[in-house]
Amino acid sequence: MPDFNPTRDSSLKSWVESANQPGCDFPIQNLPFGVISDRSNPVPRIGVAIGDQVLDLAVLEQVEILLADGSRAIFNQPILNPFIALRQNAWRETRAKITALLRDDNPVLRDNTSLCRRALLPIAGVSLHMPIDVRGYTDFYSSKEHATNVGSIFRDPKNPLLPNWAEMPVAYNGRTSSIIVSGTPVRRPQGQLMPPNSVRPVFGPCRMLDFELETAFIVGEGNVLGEPISIDGAEKHIFGMVLLNDWSARDIQRWEYVPLGPFNGKTFATSISPWVITMEALEPFRVQGPTQNPQPLPYLQQTGRHSFDIHLEVKLKPDGTGESTTITRTNFRHIYWSMAQQLAHHTVSGCNTRAGDLMASGTISGPEPESFASLLELTWNGQKPLELLNGGQRGFLEDGDNVTMTGWCQGDGFRVGFGEASGVVLPARL
Amino acid sequence: MPDFNPTRDSSLKSWVESANQPGCDFPIQNLPFGVISDRSNPVPRIGVAIGDQVLDLAVLEQVEILLADGSRAIFNQPILNPFIALRQNAWRETRAKITALLRDDNPVLRDNTSLCRRALLPIAGVSLHMPIDVRGYTDFYSSKEHATNVGSIFRDPKNPLLPNWAEMPVAYNGRTSSIIVSGTPVRRPQGQLMPPNSVRPVFGPCRMLDFELETAFIVGEGNVLGEPISIDGAEKHIFGMVLLNDWSARDIQRWEYVPLGPFNGKTFATSISPWVITMEALEPFRVQGPTQNPQPLPYLQQTGRHSFDIHLEVKLKPDGTGESTTITRTNFRHIYWSMAQQLAHHTVSGCNTRAGDLMASGTISGPEPESFASLLELTWNGQKPLELLNGGQRGFLEDGDNVTMTGWCQGDGFRVGFGEASGVVLPARL
Repeated sequence: MPDFNPTRDSSLKSWVESANQPGCDFPIQNLPFGVISDRSNPVPRIGVAIGDQVLDLAVLEQVEILLADGSRAIFNQPILNPFIALRQNAWRETRAKITALLRDDNPVLRDNTSLCRRALLPIAGVSLHMPIDVRGYTDFYSSKEHATNVGSIFRDPKNPLLPNWAEMPVAYNGRTSSIIVSGTPVRRPQGQLMPPNSVRPVFGPCRMLDFELETAFIVGEGNVLGEPISIDGAEKHIFGMVLLNDWSARDIQRWEYVPLGPFNGKTFATSISPWVITMEALEPFRVQGPTQNPQPLPYLQQTGRHSFDIHLEVKLKPDGTGESTTITRTNFRHIYWSMAQQLAHHTVSGCNTRAGDLMASGTISGPEPESFASLLELTWNGQKPLELLNGGQRGFLEDGDNVTMTGWCQGDGFRVGFGEASGVVLPARL
Repeated sequence: MPDFNPTRDSSLKSWVESANQPGCDFPIQNLPFGVISDRSNPVPRIGVAIGDQVLDLAVLEQVEILLADGSRAIFNQPILNPFIALRQNAWRETRAKITALLRDDNPVLRDNTSLCRRALLPIAGVSLHMPIDVRGYTDFYSSKEHATNVGSIFRDPKNPLLPNWAEMPVAYNGRTSSIIVSGTPVRRPQGQLMPPNSVRPVFGPCRMLDFELETAFIVGEGNVLGEPISIDGAEKHIFGMVLLNDWSARDIQRWEYVPLGPFNGKTFATSISPWVITMEALEPFRVQGPTQNPQPLPYLQQTGRHSFDIHLEVKLKPDGTGESTTITRTNFRHIYWSMAQQLAHHTVSGCNTRAGDLMASGTISGPEPESFASLLELTWNGQKPLELLNGGQRGFLEDGDNVTMTGWCQGDGFRVGFGEASGVVLPARL
């Protein structure tokens, strides 16, 4: 809201010098929340990234410089759920207090050397954990370009978009147990594959392993079973966003997904970035989403700017090479259905949501082939392999490949960055 | 295992007299686990049903007559998850101890009047809660008859069964947040409906509200991400079973489900019965499942008896009438894919499971029309309404309808019953 993020400019500075560098993901305008531990304190707890440092909120809570909701048991927790369950006013107050503590003109923490030594930790020395206990995971399918591409490849190039697509934010329930934090390796799955012209499937390692570049929002305030969230009130239920890699085994998926949707082709792993970017930090980067035609049914209608200008990239680094190739560049603003529309649709049946529910955007493919956000689309089902900078080619992912997603909102002299969601492919367990 | 359930006969008796009646769901051969509270102690805790009484395990734990795993903090819990996470040996030991305590020839509890007064509560006076915290919910589709019927109605009567169906236990991820315990009313959902010959969908209350009679098993011992559960070891991961009503909004489902599967048509409510029947109690009722043709791929192959003879019924009672009509009678043994095959398939990609995960069978339709297990099938998409005993008819469910599912295994002179999963339909929230 305007109070906390009045402008997109860089006039606000922190006494943490590294936060003021123009290319830094974590300036004082960002202040993302994560769960950290380090060698001196291996107990996971909540921290906020600032420059190349982490502010340990459990320490600030202990000395009562920072209390959320008057409680002393909110930040010394291994997950963000208790904090985000406090709802929007508490998030905003906490953010305002942290902003104040880190401003270059505030001496309270800046000049307290012994407290700084305990509360400010170099990011390079901390472990980053899953920031939330994900109670429910929903994956939407809200990029028109992606749905069109997949429909062309999997079904019918003449009628790629199904008739329900433009009427509702189509989605499916995902598997929560296999959501992992960036940096966790991903084992190539095995499963049933249907070779061309075969009568029966064979069993073996996936041969068409893929990523999907997505973002996800985290529900902050849930709703009661039977009581939908209206489109107008939906945004205040959203705590923040992360990057998400919806790892996909295309051959397993293709054989299994009719009629009940993707299952083993997706359930083996979903990676998220460790820092949750708050909606307050994203507020200055609001933009209008794509024009919606036909006009949605009334329960999905909204006016104004409900999308966000978030630049997104994927880098691929083969095993044993130092060289990464940026294989796609796209933007969240291409997503057709807004997060508010997604949440309104999800709950319109009466379905309840809970603090910590994760709701992914779907693959964020843009209109140009260079902005397609999966290998399935970039290589058109493996037919047009990508050229890598080290001379190699890729149809789908190979063992040892490291896939890294990054994203940021570009302000004037600073950026609100998402950090990264990365994972390396391990060989199948045979 | 043979130690605890040597026979299917009724020679084992309890000093709780009501447990020895032939029609009783909860004889000493059953001993299902649930979560209870009552007026004298409103804190939810774990109990075991015996006849028309509940044995309060928190009381027995407190006085150290019954300790699981040597701990005093397992039964005074609002969910079964900590107990079932102790794994199979602990379940069996606990069951053996409770069996011993309740046998007619054991005076320890029987003759301790003051302890009996505290530990034995009439079922009629207790509230039954959700027995588990469901971390993951998966709904299989493992009745060949149901898949054939739905394929005929929704797609193509000439090719109702899709080619993957006979090769794998097809499944989708369900929504955990809206799983409710028997007795909780179900609000008729609203959503997008596509009228025949219409160009665009309309929004409104579901007009084709349905039930699906299913059972579900509860995972007791999970597996680590990347390490599948093999078919041979799968059964020891299963704690027990419940009845499940997969409430379905057929009109919403039909319009939304291609290509990513059912979503709002299912996420508004799923009811389960409150008592978890252990696999030990079901052991004497093992039977061979249907012949599988083609022979499954090796990771799904098993020999021996891996199904169970569980008789299942659904009763429908319209609002304001005292009269219930039994509208279907079927049996779990019709299910084509065994629970072990379902679990092996679910994890073969490397997907991890956790104690408390719920995995539903899919609608248990039998071969005869009278054994179809949803109104969609029983009325053939509403075309052949059911006649009710009070003179009414049903195509799909009406407001005020009470749907009650029951199930039991018939022994010689006793039965292992599931209790019931019931719910009444409330009008849509307009």
